[in-house]
Amino acid sequence: MESVDLIIDARWIIPVEPDRQVLEHHSIVIHGGRILALLPTAEMQSRFSTHEHVRRSTHLVIPGLINAHTHGAMSLLRGVADDLPFDTWLHKRIFPLEQRFVSAEFVREGSELAFAEMLLAGTTCVADWYFYPDESARVAAELHMRACIGAPIADFPAPWSRGAGDYLSQGLALHDAWRDHPLITTALGPHSPYLVGDATFERIRTYADQLDATVMIHLHESAAEIEQSLAVHGLRPIERLRRLGLLSPRMIAVHFTQAEPVDIATAAQAGISVVHCPASNLKLGNGVAPAQAMLEAGLNVALGTDGAASNNTLDLLGEMRLAALLAKGSSRDPTVLDAATAVRMATLNGARALGLDSETGSLVPGKWADLCCVNLDAPATLPVYSPLSQVVYAAAREQVSDVWVAGKHLVRDREFTLLDPDRLRHQTTRWNERIGSHVERPA
Amino acid sequence: MESVDLIIDARWIIPVEPDRQVLEHHSIVIHGGRILALLPTAEMQSRFSTHEHVRRSTHLVIPGLINAHTHGAMSLLRGVADDLPFDTWLHKRIFPLEQRFVSAEFVREGSELAFAEMLLAGTTCVADWYFYPDESARVAAELHMRACIGAPIADFPAPWSRGAGDYLSQGLALHDAWRDHPLITTALGPHSPYLVGDATFERIRTYADQLDATVMIHLHESAAEIEQSLAVHGLRPIERLRRLGLLSPRMIAVHFTQAEPVDIATAAQAGISVVHCPASNLKLGNGVAPAQAMLEAGLNVALGTDGAASNNTLDLLGEMRLAALLAKGSSRDPTVLDAATAVRMATLNGARALGLDSETGSLVPGKWADLCCVNLDAPATLPVYSPLSQVVYAAAREQVSDVWVAGKHLVRDREFTLLDPDRLRHQTTRWNERIGSHVERPA
Repeated sequence: MESVDLIIDARWIIPVEPDRQVLEHHSIVIHGGRILALLPTAEMQSRFSTHEHVRRSTHLVIPGLINAHTHGAMSLLRGVADDLPFDTWLHKRIFPLEQRFVSAEFVREGSELAFAEMLLAGTTCVADWYFYPDESARVAAELHMRACIGAPIADFPAPWSRGAGDYLSQGLALHDAWRDHPLITTALGPHSPYLVGDATFERIRTYADQLDATVMIHLHESAAEIEQSLAVHGLRPIERLRRLGLLSPRMIAVHFTQAEPVDIATAAQAGISVVHCPASNLKLGNGVAPAQAMLEAGLNVALGTDGAASNNTLDLLGEMRLAALLAKGSSRDPTVLDAATAVRMATLNGARALGLDSETGSLVPGKWADLCCVNLDAPATLPVYSPLSQVVYAAAREQVSDVWVAGKHLVRDREFTLLDPDRLRHQTTRWNERIGSHVERPA
Repeated sequence: MESVDLIIDARWIIPVEPDRQVLEHHSIVIHGGRILALLPTAEMQSRFSTHEHVRRSTHLVIPGLINAHTHGAMSLLRGVADDLPFDTWLHKRIFPLEQRFVSAEFVREGSELAFAEMLLAGTTCVADWYFYPDESARVAAELHMRACIGAPIADFPAPWSRGAGDYLSQGLALHDAWRDHPLITTALGPHSPYLVGDATFERIRTYADQLDATVMIHLHESAAEIEQSLAVHGLRPIERLRRLGLLSPRMIAVHFTQAEPVDIATAAQAGISVVHCPASNLKLGNGVAPAQAMLEAGLNVALGTDGAASNNTLDLLGEMRLAALLAKGSSRDPTVLDAATAVRMATLNGARALGLDSETGSLVPGKWADLCCVNLDAPATLPVYSPLSQVVYAAAREQVSDVWVAGKHLVRDREFTLLDPDRLRHQTTRWNERIGSHVERPA
């Protein structure tokens, strides 16, 4: 008998690799934070022993969800500005509140709120991207959550930075500070084609090449962005980036709602990843990204929630369901973007976008044990004919019972093991009071 | 001091009438099952006393949600057939399973599962419509849930009925059996224009006029329905119904995804209600009903989940959010279908569709105390700047803590007071096993 750190018995397991597989009455054997084996529970019992044996008899285990795009700290601005025109939302509400309130403390406490919400909902890995990225990185590391932290870059000053050069040097410092951390990676984050000029893009390309760094950018989010790029540069934004040499498999294009066939072809040829943020795109009136066409073109399409100021939740199970429903509704074809595809987008495709697919995103021996349990024993998810259908179309965040990152049990029976919910509530309430008096009420 | 049955103190209350009002630190005073008063908690303390005082200090109270369209018993078929073409879904999967399994027992136990799911998610009133409607009515009455039970009518035989005449006589018997029940009303439910001929529609019109009965019908659900009607009758379905004299404020048109301006004008002129079922319409590939255009035309638009075989949840909070997001995304205008409108659609508009708006749907003295508490004290719904935004864009079903119907506490701290969850689990598991061996697995 081989002694190991942890064994989880599950009613069902969806490992994501191989594609579409659903295992019944299997166990996951974990040692040193990594998956050692997946095998029938009956077989496991004769081969492995452990002091920590978790039995989940009505649960489905899936890889931990990967939120490939958010601005975590903006959870403190959840609900400050809904149902408004995009320009009013951004320039009259969000930017002034950020100018007044964003600080290292805001980012630390806002990120903690966001990561807490995500962990409870089964997210084990997040691409976070906001001012004071070092603070978010520290919070993720403290909570033992996996994160790719983007350093924002723009040609205008912000609460955190005086301008392009300053952003870049802080981004490089972030990269150096976290380069050897087992849970944290970093990325360069030029905000968008409309807030970054060619000279800055060229410097980003140079650094990205030297460091082999991931580059994340908001791309083709709104119709106005395309029009402005055509007017100023005579090019669609993605074509401008292509000519600047920015497109590569390290690039993550977020949103891509305005994606014509020519844009999809350019993206597919360069092998970039796309992060589909369906709730945010709908809520801000930007439409629906053609996720099915992108998948058919061979693009790697992951899922993101965007920030809580434009969603207003950080719930990957919800985005999975919405992505599947929208693809069917907008194509008038109920067979597209099926349940298995939705689960892969929220797990393995996210890992691939972040360059982490050899480490996480599926339940394969050798990868980190990043996973979550979804309890299907509830009126909303019974009976169970297809666990894949159930997790995409019927289950919701409250059914996530347990979460592990690199084998560490972070959520147990819906309770945090590391995080103090009273402290979180207390610090969030202080921001609620401080910011609340500056929030305009709807008429 | 006036002694009353029940007082609920809430951090926030959204009464829906007046429109957009949010009350803070108010109490709801309930006596004889009805709302006696809404007033500031401080004022209540000097005027009323009670043996049952419920204090909800981090909660929002809203009217109980009204699911204006479902087929409750189909919860036993949840997940049997996803990601399939519409015709395969209906004719190759759903109809054969219904032929084999639908019985009085199926409807009784399936309805109980559905009503349990809905109650836990804050739904206090449901328009249910399936075979053996007397069974669903009995289950709703036993659970003390408010329901409008539709008797199905079609020109073809089904597990429950031998044909049009039989359907009609059973529908009339249903009406007679429940006419004096305080919680249950009934309706005539011709399936759709394509499964009901003119002669049967004329009989339905006669009975509806005599009984002043609500008539519910699936209308303009798919593009194929419009094409078929044009081919067979030379008329769009709603125009055919208009000529048959079926359109009136008692009529509820469910789906209405294929609604051209001329259809909306016809519907608005007749004063019918529409039930928008956004998740089901997307999932079956039927597109998005133009909810905003209907609201602007003055139509009463309510919300429904449809059955669990095409959604796959019965979650009105989720439909509220989806309706708001879709209206914004499809119109490219983030200001349309705002949070207050979404809440009204899920409450008062549903009551109006069912002819119950003098009895329920808003928190107004004199109406039944049908209401639910949503606990906003969770990482996903903090901070709270706008309770209206929060309940539509951030809250989810698990945050429903308490539910009352006509003043009776049916869900207390997320636990049923009347229903035995073990019995429900046991009987659902039996159906899972019985039906499961007949469900085709996806390839």
